[in-house]
Amino acid sequence: LFKPKSIAVIGAANNPLSIGHIVIQNLVDHNFLGPIYPINPKSPFIKSFKTYPTVAHVPDEIDLVNISIKNTLVPAVLEDCGKKGVKFAIVHTSGFKEVGQEGLRLEKQIVEIAHKYGMRIYGPNSQGIQNSDPSVSVYANFTFVPMRPGNISIVAQSGGVGETLKLHLHRIGLGIRMYSSFGNEADVSMNEIIDYFGQDEETKVIMTHIETLKDPAGFLEVASRITRRIPVLALKTGKTPEGVKAVASHTGSLIEQDTLAEALFKKCGVLRFNSQQEMIEAAVALSSQPIPKGERVVIVTNTGGPAIIAVDECISAGLKLAKLSPQTGETLGKLLFSEAIVSNPVDVIATAGAKEYGGTVQSLLDDPNIDALLLVFVTPPFVDCEEVARKLAEIGNTAQKPILCIVLTIEEKFGQVIRLIRKSGLPVYDFAESASRALAAMIKYGRVREREKPEYLR
Amino acid sequence: LFKPKSIAVIGAANNPLSIGHIVIQNLVDHNFLGPIYPINPKSPFIKSFKTYPTVAHVPDEIDLVNISIKNTLVPAVLEDCGKKGVKFAIVHTSGFKEVGQEGLRLEKQIVEIAHKYGMRIYGPNSQGIQNSDPSVSVYANFTFVPMRPGNISIVAQSGGVGETLKLHLHRIGLGIRMYSSFGNEADVSMNEIIDYFGQDEETKVIMTHIETLKDPAGFLEVASRITRRIPVLALKTGKTPEGVKAVASHTGSLIEQDTLAEALFKKCGVLRFNSQQEMIEAAVALSSQPIPKGERVVIVTNTGGPAIIAVDECISAGLKLAKLSPQTGETLGKLLFSEAIVSNPVDVIATAGAKEYGGTVQSLLDDPNIDALLLVFVTPPFVDCEEVARKLAEIGNTAQKPILCIVLTIEEKFGQVIRLIRKSGLPVYDFAESASRALAAMIKYGRVREREKPEYLR
Repeated sequence: LFKPKSIAVIGAANNPLSIGHIVIQNLVDHNFLGPIYPINPKSPFIKSFKTYPTVAHVPDEIDLVNISIKNTLVPAVLEDCGKKGVKFAIVHTSGFKEVGQEGLRLEKQIVEIAHKYGMRIYGPNSQGIQNSDPSVSVYANFTFVPMRPGNISIVAQSGGVGETLKLHLHRIGLGIRMYSSFGNEADVSMNEIIDYFGQDEETKVIMTHIETLKDPAGFLEVASRITRRIPVLALKTGKTPEGVKAVASHTGSLIEQDTLAEALFKKCGVLRFNSQQEMIEAAVALSSQPIPKGERVVIVTNTGGPAIIAVDECISAGLKLAKLSPQTGETLGKLLFSEAIVSNPVDVIATAGAKEYGGTVQSLLDDPNIDALLLVFVTPPFVDCEEVARKLAEIGNTAQKPILCIVLTIEEKFGQVIRLIRKSGLPVYDFAESASRALAAMIKYGRVREREKPEYLR
Repeated sequence: LFKPKSIAVIGAANNPLSIGHIVIQNLVDHNFLGPIYPINPKSPFIKSFKTYPTVAHVPDEIDLVNISIKNTLVPAVLEDCGKKGVKFAIVHTSGFKEVGQEGLRLEKQIVEIAHKYGMRIYGPNSQGIQNSDPSVSVYANFTFVPMRPGNISIVAQSGGVGETLKLHLHRIGLGIRMYSSFGNEADVSMNEIIDYFGQDEETKVIMTHIETLKDPAGFLEVASRITRRIPVLALKTGKTPEGVKAVASHTGSLIEQDTLAEALFKKCGVLRFNSQQEMIEAAVALSSQPIPKGERVVIVTNTGGPAIIAVDECISAGLKLAKLSPQTGETLGKLLFSEAIVSNPVDVIATAGAKEYGGTVQSLLDDPNIDALLLVFVTPPFVDCEEVARKLAEIGNTAQKPILCIVLTIEEKFGQVIRLIRKSGLPVYDFAESASRALAAMIKYGRVREREKPEYLR
């Protein structure tokens, strides 16, 4: 499913607004490393690709098909695919379980057909999959966020939420490893996908959006195993439109269900978030920085107010302000201007340049009393800010402790400052609150990894 | 202070990294509507402006001076200013109260000098002021966010936080009305500034960042008066570096202080926020949309998952999901595709175009059972999204109920969709969580305005 060597697109059309056309466009735009076979009995060509009237006419093997034809036509087409030896069918088409009894019957029928031929169904009513691995580079999905390689994989029950998660990684220049928005889960299940992503060496963080846990026991087993190696993040939201209505009218029962999900996540070490943004912010830090060994944070700043916000936020999240070692205090006392505050937060003051800001960060990295660093950097007009950024990037490249940056600046003028820091892998946040919350999530994950292996995994 | 007819910059220098130079640059870049007099005894010209050795040499009246010379030189210069009849002195220079006893003495001295001449001191250790009113257009501040006219005024105790607030309004294309980051508050007080902004007809929302309330009783009086007309938003963070340390070691006392601030805000109807971002998001909605008459919200969406997040968030914030009137149900039933869900959230489905999406919003605006609308719009590749945006903008221009939009899209491709909607004044958010929280703040403010006038204001 995630490493197809060839793809047929059933429902491919020359209408650029059709799902089939968009899937082909996405595959082409992202240089899919294999042949694409548009299936269309009417048009001889689609986007310069020769078409075939059915999969049976394709002269080569087909690993994966993307189907976006009318729901009632899907069964017949799946018979063809089965006979052809297709391994996976992504069914984008809607009009199945989600529309009621008749749709449910149709959904059961397509799974039966698939299984008869040893084929698996992904969906129906699904957005698709993506794998940025350069040896595959598959964008078998009809969404619009461009794909580039990264190390965060996403499993989203809602395509809209999944797209939002991808979008915000894209906005800060980050890519994804693999992506899945799986629709009705008629056959290939969310747990199978999470399990698969968890076994992928290049995936460093898994973000999930969950509306309903179809198989909580399976989730517990899979997630418990993965969270010992890499963090699994979850956003659990209301269920179906009906479930949501229940929020309003029968709050009690839903709170109860939510409490169960909460307990489940805790048991398997999944980090739960209250908003998409908080989950993204944490994923960015977890995917790029070493996990802190403890909860002793130091804040470095060249402006007062935002550092105080960081303190407020860290303390409310249960972190501790590190006490600098006497040696660090001495080093900073010599290094910094006399108006600087050598304490925690360390205020290097606005006039600090690369030597002062960079030297401070290096000293704090070397201090055994410190587990993690939060840096606040506002770009003062009287400092060579790019030099500071280069210095931070250089330090960030080899740091053994997590460093999270808050850069307060205007892209039009100081965009390069942000880019230089990000290039080194150091995450850059807009708000002190965001970075502090992300750090708190990292420390929480550090604790998950330190836990005893649960009995059912021994 | 906020409407100077002429400005002298004391400490103006040709070094483009000096505060004096940056202030002149900012004044020039923003077309200050009055003469600028750089004061410098050494350079005959600064940036094409003839300089004067002292304010006494300036041939015209001076309303305001910006001072960025060494702290110990400030008293003598203020004597000159006093004799010249200057009305306000913005002291950017640091090295006063914030550095200890000696600084405090110096600070008292400069206030004494000023008052002797009927002059007022703004600062010291202050960032400055801005007023975007086109009849003044004054950017007497050394920060970097460009100023454009808007209707949100900002009072920030921390310059770094103030700059962050401005920055994020700028990023979404919004301006400010007036801005103040007032430093040590030796003379002109935060309460005076809030009071002044509160009396400004063009200010629709006041955002404040507060570390310490120097005069809680004064704040209560001023804020109570203003909140009856326009919303006052507050971010209250830890105090000084020492106060922050206290958070870690003596949590008890600080929580107590925080509880007092909380009670004070409640009493005077100030909306308190837990993060800069939440405050900005609320300010954007409050400054552009009518205050909802009640708490009955309807959510319209063309994608499932994010709408469910909006429901979760609205319900947790204490809002109510509106029940559509039978007439609205009937209208939408006829208007929308058969797969649409005519309920709350209204799911118009992804294929809905301008006719369906716009018609739905219009019907809901007309429904007496509804107080506010949250719109979720993901840009589907198979819909004319700009047409939808134009329709929403058209409706937004005349709507009598608040409409908040969540647009899920990629700027590179659909930037115009966001711009079209924003141009009509409808706020656009990246996340369903953000818009829902902002709406909750609006409803909270609606309740503040409905309260009985407090006794001390009658």
